[in-house]
Amino acid sequence: MIQALHGKSLIAGQPAADEADTARPISPLDRQPLDPPIHQAGGADVRRATEAAEAAFLPYSKLAAAARAAFLERIATEIEGIGDGLLERAHRETGLPLERLRGERGRTCGQLRLFAAVVREGSWVDARIDPAQPDRQPLPRADLRRMLVPLGPVVVFGSSNFPLAFSVAGGDTASALAAGNPVIVKAHSAHPGTSEMVAEAVARAVRACGLPPGVFSMLHGRGQIVGTALARDPRVRAVGFTGSQAAGRALFDVAAARPDPIPVFAEMASLNPVILLPGALSGDTKALATGLKNSVMLGVGQFCTKPGLVFALRSAGLDNFLAHFAAAIKAAAPATMLHPGICESYHADAADLSAVPGVSVLARAGTPAKAEATEGAALVLQTSAASFLARPTLRETEVFGPFSLVVVADSTNELMALAESLTGQLTATLHGSADDLAAAGDLVAVLQRKAGRLIVNGFPTGVEVCPAMTHGGPYPATTDARFTSVGTAAMLRFVRPVTWQDCPEALLPPELRNANPSGIMRLINNELTRHPIP
Amino acid sequence: MIQALHGKSLIAGQPAADEADTARPISPLDRQPLDPPIHQAGGADVRRATEAAEAAFLPYSKLAAAARAAFLERIATEIEGIGDGLLERAHRETGLPLERLRGERGRTCGQLRLFAAVVREGSWVDARIDPAQPDRQPLPRADLRRMLVPLGPVVVFGSSNFPLAFSVAGGDTASALAAGNPVIVKAHSAHPGTSEMVAEAVARAVRACGLPPGVFSMLHGRGQIVGTALARDPRVRAVGFTGSQAAGRALFDVAAARPDPIPVFAEMASLNPVILLPGALSGDTKALATGLKNSVMLGVGQFCTKPGLVFALRSAGLDNFLAHFAAAIKAAAPATMLHPGICESYHADAADLSAVPGVSVLARAGTPAKAEATEGAALVLQTSAASFLARPTLRETEVFGPFSLVVVADSTNELMALAESLTGQLTATLHGSADDLAAAGDLVAVLQRKAGRLIVNGFPTGVEVCPAMTHGGPYPATTDARFTSVGTAAMLRFVRPVTWQDCPEALLPPELRNANPSGIMRLINNELTRHPIP
Repeated sequence: MIQALHGKSLIAGQPAADEADTARPISPLDRQPLDPPIHQAGGADVRRATEAAEAAFLPYSKLAAAARAAFLERIATEIEGIGDGLLERAHRETGLPLERLRGERGRTCGQLRLFAAVVREGSWVDARIDPAQPDRQPLPRADLRRMLVPLGPVVVFGSSNFPLAFSVAGGDTASALAAGNPVIVKAHSAHPGTSEMVAEAVARAVRACGLPPGVFSMLHGRGQIVGTALARDPRVRAVGFTGSQAAGRALFDVAAARPDPIPVFAEMASLNPVILLPGALSGDTKALATGLKNSVMLGVGQFCTKPGLVFALRSAGLDNFLAHFAAAIKAAAPATMLHPGICESYHADAADLSAVPGVSVLARAGTPAKAEATEGAALVLQTSAASFLARPTLRETEVFGPFSLVVVADSTNELMALAESLTGQLTATLHGSADDLAAAGDLVAVLQRKAGRLIVNGFPTGVEVCPAMTHGGPYPATTDARFTSVGTAAMLRFVRPVTWQDCPEALLPPELRNANPSGIMRLINNELTRHPIP
Repeated sequence: MIQALHGKSLIAGQPAADEADTARPISPLDRQPLDPPIHQAGGADVRRATEAAEAAFLPYSKLAAAARAAFLERIATEIEGIGDGLLERAHRETGLPLERLRGERGRTCGQLRLFAAVVREGSWVDARIDPAQPDRQPLPRADLRRMLVPLGPVVVFGSSNFPLAFSVAGGDTASALAAGNPVIVKAHSAHPGTSEMVAEAVARAVRACGLPPGVFSMLHGRGQIVGTALARDPRVRAVGFTGSQAAGRALFDVAAARPDPIPVFAEMASLNPVILLPGALSGDTKALATGLKNSVMLGVGQFCTKPGLVFALRSAGLDNFLAHFAAAIKAAAPATMLHPGICESYHADAADLSAVPGVSVLARAGTPAKAEATEGAALVLQTSAASFLARPTLRETEVFGPFSLVVVADSTNELMALAESLTGQLTATLHGSADDLAAAGDLVAVLQRKAGRLIVNGFPTGVEVCPAMTHGGPYPATTDARFTSVGTAAMLRFVRPVTWQDCPEALLPPELRNANPSGIMRLINNELTRHPIP
């Protein structure tokens, strides 16, 4: 099943032509270049991909729900069919352990199947019917029927830190395809081989399901050239992105400046504060410290939801906790990060924050990081609430890697001020006893305005793919807090409502016909029901 | 009940201080200035209003659904309680007939009550619960509960053409308040007295319901000063606007350039094409012509959904129809437009399009317009498909007033090319026989990508306020095709999802508690149900 990699973009199922401009990925494990050289797409490739996507849009959007669901399931089967060669390539390209990648593949395929189930069930289209009232006074009412329809071609930027679950066939792609939109992926330059293998799997699924080839393309290339050209292309109707705040905001700005602005869903920067209330610090502080250390270290700290801030009240319990936490961090072994650039940024950003006045080192890994293996070593800093509030850089810098900053408050008021000083976050976490939590209503209210997900007595890493998940939050966590990029509600980013007025049944989508052939839940005369209209 | 107007902004229930900068509205009926002079708000007023809104947000957002619904209903009662003095003032300020304003008041109050009903029923929050699975392998699942919560203070720009239904307590305000957000209205300068009367009614409702006064404010002022300041204010979380493309885009650009961009829902420019298929032209062409004329003339053509374009195939039936349509337009009496500026723009834009090569006059009103009564006279132009396709100005200029442009195609292919040339629209309308429609699948597919609402054998004016309505569409019809500004789904513009993970019941909103006290529809383990969780 493993074919030799060609290193080319895949446009509507076909490898693109050779390009003189090539780049070779570096394995972070040993800093050695990997084969083959990757051909960097140019403007003509962007145009071919978006034209193919536009041509595929109408037939793909009209596909019956069951056929669209079968396509998503087929993608999962094709990815599994690649076998463990996919994991081995991803390991070489990202340094992530094989077991982690095995789990990530499971998540990726499970995600595709979950979206398939939602599409097959069908109620997600939010169908609403207000039947005609010809005798209404003073004016008759027309027959009005509304549902969500796909937007058009969607561009997805693969993310470096989840080479399967947030990349070529990850959550953004799965949700955009599930919603009925063709997808063009801009592959992340750190794992082009993994990207090609997955893209070929998607292309096989497209062929197997007899879909127009433009339903899916993948481009290799430099973000500032290919990424910008994709966000500007008049055929593209939305963009999904996971990555840095600088890159996400640049894409947002390009899309907002178009003659016809389009939405950009960029998931960017989040510090994911963890607030330790007194009751949590009077309990098993060692277990709490181990749990927090594990969350900080997960994936070598390269999770969007890594807890990068810890707030707590000064107390003997806190001293206790910090001693355990420092010991755990000291014992944490350095590990290979995703690529040399991320590793260098990590150590540079950590050094910058270490140099901020009022900041001291609480703990660092006892073993030095091996530069030749692109390792990152854990670091935890500590500061006072007063210093934190006085230095915006401490709340504005996401140190991407095994890092956290502990902020010690002297009063409950200071703890509230810390919470209020936060910018938008993906998550906020509270640890406390039942009594702590019962008294924490004001704090919860503040955190609810800051974050997309509130966690109680748990840790923010580990984002469940399910209907109730919100992976999003106010700026700069994302560019649009009104949506999630994980979970089934992610589809809602890529649709818009259309209303049909007095339209003959034959021209209506099946979801809006009287008979309700799929038995979906519909809002009829403002009441939810699965019944047909007599 | 009618008090003397004070001509001041109303900030958190209190009239603002006098300002040296005042402006007097002009009645379009006789071009006479109206009392009192209107004090123009400045930056300090903006800050006071947004600070009050921010202070009101938390208590208002936490209000029980029944209390929020009662507040919306009380606003309706207070508006009705003003009595017909409101209609008389609106008539003086806008020139709209009293009967039309009476209907618009009914629509405005009905809209508030409809939102109240949706809030009271409660399922609109899209609650989703994935209960904990502590024994799941390989990893346990946390308890995840998600619902939509309000965004924060919302700014609403009153529109000139619906001084009640799209103004101070119109659809944007009603939907933002229904969703749990404080509202600051920037009043339209053409009907400040009407705005003050309605704003005082809303303030009375705020007081009667014991809500924090910052839940509602209204500012008079110049758009480029007060409007821009509101869109830039860091406390403001979203903007609703109905008006010109230039002003809407300017607001969008201001909001997108913020350090933390916020959504702007601007409903702007739409030509609302009406396509006459052959079967429609072989039937009762006189009735069709009368219906179209009525739609073009409704509100002196000052509707967002006025049919400004008519596409048809050259035929004897079309000649027949055009003769009837021309006669109806010639007989249409000129009438007072909303204000002198709109009247001047109308005649200037109509003259500009008349001068485009290939464009001729099909018909104009037989009676001249009286300038001293700010009258607009109907005009219908005609051109060929080839000329239309060659002159982008013809598809990019919304002539706001009693105007339409008939475009005659020589073939079905040309008709498709016309449809494909369109930019985004609020509506698109098809007239045809059953056979025409059965063969129009491709045309419908093109129009569905262009418009938010497709109408068959009807007319686009008259936007029903109901769950199934979509008043929105691709740019430049709006800045965000994913939402509607009319109907109950308009609330979805002003909310975002939040997920609570392993949160004690007492800290959860009632909608997410096991008992489901309001009996709302919830998605539990991916199944819709009103049952409680045992």
